[in-house]
Amino acid sequence: MTTNSVGTDVAVSADRLHDAVVQILVGEGATLADAAQQAEVLVEGDLRGHPSHGVRRLAVLVGRMRNGLIRTGVAPRTTWISDAFLSVDGDRGFGPVVAGVAIEAITRRAAESGIALAAVHNANHMGMLAPYVERIAAVGQIGIALTTSEALVHPWGSARPMVGTNPVGIAVPTESEPLVLDMSTAAVSMGKVLDHVATSQPIPLGWAVDRHGRPVTDPVEASDGALSPFGGPKGYALGIALEVLVGTVTGTAFGPRKQGTLDVEHVATKGDIFVAISLDRIGGLPHLSLVEAYLQDVRASGTGPDPVTVPGDRARATRAERLANGIPINPQVWQEVEQLLEEHGA
Amino acid sequence: MTTNSVGTDVAVSADRLHDAVVQILVGEGATLADAAQQAEVLVEGDLRGHPSHGVRRLAVLVGRMRNGLIRTGVAPRTTWISDAFLSVDGDRGFGPVVAGVAIEAITRRAAESGIALAAVHNANHMGMLAPYVERIAAVGQIGIALTTSEALVHPWGSARPMVGTNPVGIAVPTESEPLVLDMSTAAVSMGKVLDHVATSQPIPLGWAVDRHGRPVTDPVEASDGALSPFGGPKGYALGIALEVLVGTVTGTAFGPRKQGTLDVEHVATKGDIFVAISLDRIGGLPHLSLVEAYLQDVRASGTGPDPVTVPGDRARATRAERLANGIPINPQVWQEVEQLLEEHGA
Repeated sequence: MTTNSVGTDVAVSADRLHDAVVQILVGEGATLADAAQQAEVLVEGDLRGHPSHGVRRLAVLVGRMRNGLIRTGVAPRTTWISDAFLSVDGDRGFGPVVAGVAIEAITRRAAESGIALAAVHNANHMGMLAPYVERIAAVGQIGIALTTSEALVHPWGSARPMVGTNPVGIAVPTESEPLVLDMSTAAVSMGKVLDHVATSQPIPLGWAVDRHGRPVTDPVEASDGALSPFGGPKGYALGIALEVLVGTVTGTAFGPRKQGTLDVEHVATKGDIFVAISLDRIGGLPHLSLVEAYLQDVRASGTGPDPVTVPGDRARATRAERLANGIPINPQVWQEVEQLLEEHGA
Repeated sequence: MTTNSVGTDVAVSADRLHDAVVQILVGEGATLADAAQQAEVLVEGDLRGHPSHGVRRLAVLVGRMRNGLIRTGVAPRTTWISDAFLSVDGDRGFGPVVAGVAIEAITRRAAESGIALAAVHNANHMGMLAPYVERIAAVGQIGIALTTSEALVHPWGSARPMVGTNPVGIAVPTESEPLVLDMSTAAVSMGKVLDHVATSQPIPLGWAVDRHGRPVTDPVEASDGALSPFGGPKGYALGIALEVLVGTVTGTAFGPRKQGTLDVEHVATKGDIFVAISLDRIGGLPHLSLVEAYLQDVRASGTGPDPVTVPGDRARATRAERLANGIPINPQVWQEVEQLLEEHGA
């Protein structure tokens, strides 16, 4: 538990958190099935130590439901453009609900066709990508997820937020746990910058620039400027390439025209791609033991004080610890949850 | 032209360089068609300002031909595992020759099926990825290229070279020039570190670590250690995810088991993936003007002294300038070329 200027984190069990979110979303009119899927993804964010993608997002989701920007009980329209390319119109559904339909369809298809891609538009925020690609890996397939997001990141040489934080999710099955990459192409999330605003703590240089393009440590000036890409000009290049790739494949908006994941006023105009590649179908199963051995060698290659991890290791450890001991939830966020529960007579 | 401890760069026209490489490769027994394709990719490296992927690589290619590790006049074996998934056994052919066969096949297929992927094994070094994805973009398709490479990069927390420099190539068509990403997931190429060894210049902190894992500025200590991933732990996570993704999809080697792109002793055991997505087939053509407008907005968003560029812009400008004024070639490299030409009676 950490203490900050707004109080001490509240320890909440994953089940309690999940039930609270379901109760609130159902109270707001969601079907039980939709509420459960959305709750699962939010709770996974908190369980894995990424509160920016956790229950903190609930208030915006509720606001969007109230404004008719998220629909429940929808049937996303899936159209197979070809054997391996699925177009999905999310019909303004919850992100996790639409993703569930897309992933079900492409994993079934990839089992026959080796590879299948879903191009999703008109869906709400997906949350963390790890749970989706893990779901694909769980059926023995490689999972890839790409999504665009609000333009919060500056191009290299600019102070204007023109590029999404555009995260990448990749899961590759092994003989044991999959390798799971889930990272944004920004140096940090805007949520973390805002945490520093709330606690009046400086941010490290490199996270963000002010509105004149100067790297800053003042989180207020940063929140008025733009997030920096991770890894300097290379990270910018990767981020904008994904921006244009995802926008073009899904037929969705670019740059600042993407709206509707952080606000409660606009239809979601970003896009999402999911890819499944069946190892069984492409003859890749004999490779699982080689991947396993390689990743073990990498984990054992440490030469410094910190352990060497493979993408997914730390999130898995944090998740296990929090499942056992409860999830530290920011007191303001928990207060919002309790208030919403009260509104729905709980 | 730059001057260093070994002399002044030699200005050579692209045509002259291309002809020299063709003459040498044909003299070494390559078919004219194979020699031309390999020469084109090497010259493109130099034309775009990436000598590490330019004619500097010729000596290794010649050594590999002499040792029977590169075959010429091969017919790569292509097997459509499914409608959209092509397996390519490169039969130890030149990388660019095998890539040409793969790209021809997947672009034709993608025109019908929307998306097609080629998983390549048993091919030699591809060189820069930009020319390949540009070729896909030139027929109105999105091109993606991923390849693994010799393990020169350390995992985060390790000093051991365990991960390839694993580059990513992405080209997305626009109404004018495509966006073209071509970047390795290492902070820098080993070629650049060796340039600093040759000229006894220190390297910037962050490029590499010594064999104890300490970030170093001494290029000799760096060449005895490992390259760092770009962008710290995030770049490492991306690099190893691509390592495992490409190795699994292509059925090729992982980590230090990858050989045969820098040496003249081993069969090439790395893998390559090419993906083509037809904008026409997936209904994406109306989006070209939106991409175009977005990228123009990005280019115009500069707030600092340096111009804001989109991936591909700088390489295009360098290429145009060098086509007009000649390519500066390292004098030692040029000497090697002249020596090889002499050996073949030119």
